[in-house]
Amino acid sequence: MSGPCPPRLAVITLTTDFGYEDSYVGEMKGVILSINPGAQCIDITHAVRPQNIHEGAWILNRAAPLFPAGTIHLGVVDPGVGGTRKPVCIQSNGHFFIGPDNGLFSPCLKNKAWKAFQIENKKYLRPNISNTFHGRDIFAPVAARLSLGLDPALLGKHLKQLTPLPTPSPVRKKSTLQGEVIRVDHFGNALTNIGEKLLTSSDMKKAAVKVGDFSIGKIRNTYADQKAGKPLALMASSGFLEIAVREGSAAQILGLKPGSPVTVFLKNS
Amino acid sequence: MSGPCPPRLAVITLTTDFGYEDSYVGEMKGVILSINPGAQCIDITHAVRPQNIHEGAWILNRAAPLFPAGTIHLGVVDPGVGGTRKPVCIQSNGHFFIGPDNGLFSPCLKNKAWKAFQIENKKYLRPNISNTFHGRDIFAPVAARLSLGLDPALLGKHLKQLTPLPTPSPVRKKSTLQGEVIRVDHFGNALTNIGEKLLTSSDMKKAAVKVGDFSIGKIRNTYADQKAGKPLALMASSGFLEIAVREGSAAQILGLKPGSPVTVFLKNS
Amino acid sequence: MSGPCPPRLAVITLTTDFGYEDSYVGEMKGVILSINPGAQCIDITHAVRPQNIHEGAWILNRAAPLFPAGTIHLGVVDPGVGGTRKPVCIQSNGHFFIGPDNGLFSPCLKNKAWKAFQIENKKYLRPNISNTFHGRDIFAPVAARLSLGLDPALLGKHLKQLTPLPTPSPVRKKSTLQGEVIRVDHFGNALTNIGEKLLTSSDMKKAAVKVGDFSIGKIRNTYADQKAGKPLALMASSGFLEIAVREGSAAQILGLKPGSPVTVFLKNS
Repeated sequence: MSGPCPPRLAVITLTTDFGYEDSYVGEMKGVILSINPGAQCIDITHAVRPQNIHEGAWILNRAAPLFPAGTIHLGVVDPGVGGTRKPVCIQSNGHFFIGPDNGLFSPCLKNKAWKAFQIENKKYLRPNISNTFHGRDIFAPVAARLSLGLDPALLGKHLKQLTPLPTPSPVRKKSTLQGEVIRVDHFGNALTNIGEKLLTSSDMKKAAVKVGDFSIGKIRNTYADQKAGKPLALMASSGFLEIAVREGSAAQILGLKPGSPVTVFLKNS
Repeated sequence: MSGPCPPRLAVITLTTDFGYEDSYVGEMKGVILSINPGAQCIDITHAVRPQNIHEGAWILNRAAPLFPAGTIHLGVVDPGVGGTRKPVCIQSNGHFFIGPDNGLFSPCLKNKAWKAFQIENKKYLRPNISNTFHGRDIFAPVAARLSLGLDPALLGKHLKQLTPLPTPSPVRKKSTLQGEVIRVDHFGNALTNIGEKLLTSSDMKKAAVKVGDFSIGKIRNTYADQKAGKPLALMASSGFLEIAVREGSAAQILGLKPGSPVTVFLKNS
Repeated sequence: MSGPCPPRLAVITLTTDFGYEDSYVGEMKGVILSINPGAQCIDITHAVRPQNIHEGAWILNRAAPLFPAGTIHLGVVDPGVGGTRKPVCIQSNGHFFIGPDNGLFSPCLKNKAWKAFQIENKKYLRPNISNTFHGRDIFAPVAARLSLGLDPALLGKHLKQLTPLPTPSPVRKKSTLQGEVIRVDHFGNALTNIGEKLLTSSDMKKAAVKVGDFSIGKIRNTYADQKAGKPLALMASSGFLEIAVREGSAAQILGLKPGSPVTVFLKNS
């Protein structure tokens, strides 16, 4: 039993704070596949902490750029659902971002050109729109229709501004760089806001790292450069300074959490 | 390197209590793809609480109807595996439901025509059938074969009755509607068995909600109609009354769990 | 909007200890789909306990053989990332295994012919290779390229030996078989290293099982052969002896964990 070829391959990623134990993610996938049965639904994560826009934004910014051009990223971390925040569709760098205009996509758009449309045209949404689940009723059908080639300009009015996401930047003072922990991952590694672009390769070789009052020492190349159970600093695969414990949890052992201060001492001697 | 076109697109959803940390879900997907490499395996959830048929039934009933006609829903919450309960294939409303006959699919079939067959024909199953994992040995291969066009009547004898799932219904007494919490979701929202069909639009405007002895007030439109941290009642996206706390967990703050009483006072004055 | 037919169907499974709450799994899927948008990414599990190679190996060995020939299994449980362990591509029994050479694939290769290549050729990897995330930078792109038909011999030098994974074997003494718990699953079932091949069908009927000092009785056929809440021993769907509690958690009730001793008494009278 062969059927016709499916429409062009379309990847729709899903990033939400819906968790894994409810029907919500399944409902969105059902809506997507009802409109485009050929869409590939790819879970990035549904374990963003409830209403934590910063965490969702961080994850999307790590994962989204690695997908092929044409990918549609559905992001739903939406504490303001049903209120005044706008539903948006953003085009940037060959990708689409669909979700609430609350800063969730800000890091993905940084230093890039983008074009945004407010999602208004009811023709492309589900017939009855709940006040509490725009992921299913607005964002999923729009993502599916874009995957079939819908022109985003038909969704609604052009938006010249989007809601920004205020994020703490590291501060340089003489020979120190003062940053903070932004995120603790599954392994207990603490990721900071200190990017590799802030450090010259000479800095990298000579820098010393402190977490609060605790000296971590120099910046290493990889986990294997430290003994098991011991803390180290290294440039993470994300391009940001990471505090880790080899084969252990830095968050637990060093008591780190988002907001914990991290200092890099740059030796110019 | 192009190959022949895959067989028609076929969506197989998976809903189980197998969790995410074992090989069980992967084993089922392996069996499905070995029979139909073109099947799309879509996870609804694998976090149904162990052996909790009611929870699995609730989730399937929310998600399944949103999938396209022809979708095959594999549901495995199966405390009686290896005992006398029957393995079944049910056709209803253009969808297929495959799993144990223990009430898991009852809400999906309510007020709808259906046709059911007992799964008996060994030709369509794995050669060796374990006593403890029918998801892999019976349900997955049947789902995969249906996705290739197998006529369900070939599976076994026609069943005129299916095992029902007893569920508590809300009780109307004069001007009150007495229901209960059915489910607490990932956000701590408490979903009740009080459906919007039980309330007129005039009721909706005038009703007042109590949870145990705690007054929640009127039925609001959305989370944004209440202050952060404060409780509210609203009609959930599922069409049932929900008790929530804006940007918080109603379950934690109000001490709600399945079975907690919820009363709606209808004002006819 | 129809497009050209996708390249041949290719299944890539993913088994990692990355968890579900980070961007890491999404990053790997993005890399895969950027190279082969037609690849089907199938999650086996991402909940292997951090750095637990034995657990990852157990899960892969259960699930991988059930996938169709040609499947590419990406396995990343990699405490030695960035150190001296080799990245490998192994062909065996029509499947491919891609990941670190640390024993993760050993059980999948047991008693089977295999051919292995060290992954060295930078042409097939991401341009910049981090020291901490070879799943994204080395293994994902190689898996995607194999799914497009790349000859694995082009990846690097042929390896005649792979790192073994030491695993405890059960010991037979006169009329007892002494084994141990290898894994506790999501339901609290304790899976042992006592395989059905060690027991004749006569043994199966007459054997008695002890867990530490606690008698479990004979080997049953299925959970339904015991009362709810009571412990039982049975041959699990994996072909290994399992200690379970019907509709309960054997791990909790009997205090079992990996390493707990399990004895089978064989009665030859």
